[in-house]
Amino acid sequence: MTSATPERQRGRQLPTAEELRIWRDFIETTEALSSQVGARLQTDAALSPGDYVVLLALTEAQDRQLRSSALAAHIGWERSRLSHHLGRMERRGLIRRQECPTVPRGAEVLLTPAGADAFRQATVPHLRAIRELFVDALTADQLRAAGEIAAALRAHLATRRED
Amino acid sequence: MTSATPERQRGRQLPTAEELRIWRDFIETTEALSSQVGARLQTDAALSPGDYVVLLALTEAQDRQLRSSALAAHIGWERSRLSHHLGRMERRGLIRRQECPTVPRGAEVLLTPAGADAFRQATVPHLRAIRELFVDALTADQLRAAGEIAAALRAHLATRRED
Repeated sequence: MTSATPERQRGRQLPTAEELRIWRDFIETTEALSSQVGARLQTDAALSPGDYVVLLALTEAQDRQLRSSALAAHIGWERSRLSHHLGRMERRGLIRRQECPTVPRGAEVLLTPAGADAFRQATVPHLRAIRELFVDALTADQLRAAGEIAAALRAHLATRRED
Repeated sequence: MTSATPERQRGRQLPTAEELRIWRDFIETTEALSSQVGARLQTDAALSPGDYVVLLALTEAQDRQLRSSALAAHIGWERSRLSHHLGRMERRGLIRRQECPTVPRGAEVLLTPAGADAFRQATVPHLRAIRELFVDALTADQLRAAGEIAAALRAHLATRRED
């Protein structure tokens, strides 16, 4: 093998000015979109995006409860971030944590009736915001392309993590 | 005008299951991508994405300095978030703040030689990460579509903010 392996060659190629412009535009716009949808959720339902993600995962879970490790893996958060966030949600009565006697550091996270209620009330305004700020902005072709782009990026990220 | 104005009608339409699937996939994947590019920046150059954004704005500014209010507007941050972040960057010697005698609460933010150096060293690895994790993941058509989607979303967000 020569020193110019495909990997090294690819690593040395930098984006063109146009590719970089698209990157910046893409990443800044999706961040602005995400933050706008989050602001609407806060205004309409007094929930943060993090609260919503946790409530959604618990709502979809069997018996509306999940081991905290499974919840962290499911939503892709670090354990410590989740633990702090769950503390705040527990103080607001949205979830409840129950230690497992058999598992030293494992807690079962349960959706409370108040949490289920908050999630139910948030859902319609949240879906409306997604419709208004995302779906309505795009043509049918663009929406389909957005799905394909997300799938391509995710598949590529998965291969890079295995490197 | 009847009560069913176009605005109300649109507001009542919720996304279909397929539209919602694309939304979740799109927003979760771009967040994962952004966090992965940020992790590479931290590993390669010991800078956070926030540090990089501030250094980039100052590098591109005339005389490598900006009034803090102009910097906040340029990068789209709240003043208080920027102020805390600048405090940390100043302690690391990356920027320097200089009070304006004529403007009570305005400070001029200056790029230091150490900040310029850190930015220079970060640039090639950061551009390489963008190439590897974003550009290389997409076909030429998908990359063009990503630019068009970003433009459509941004234009739509701008009209919604004016509502």
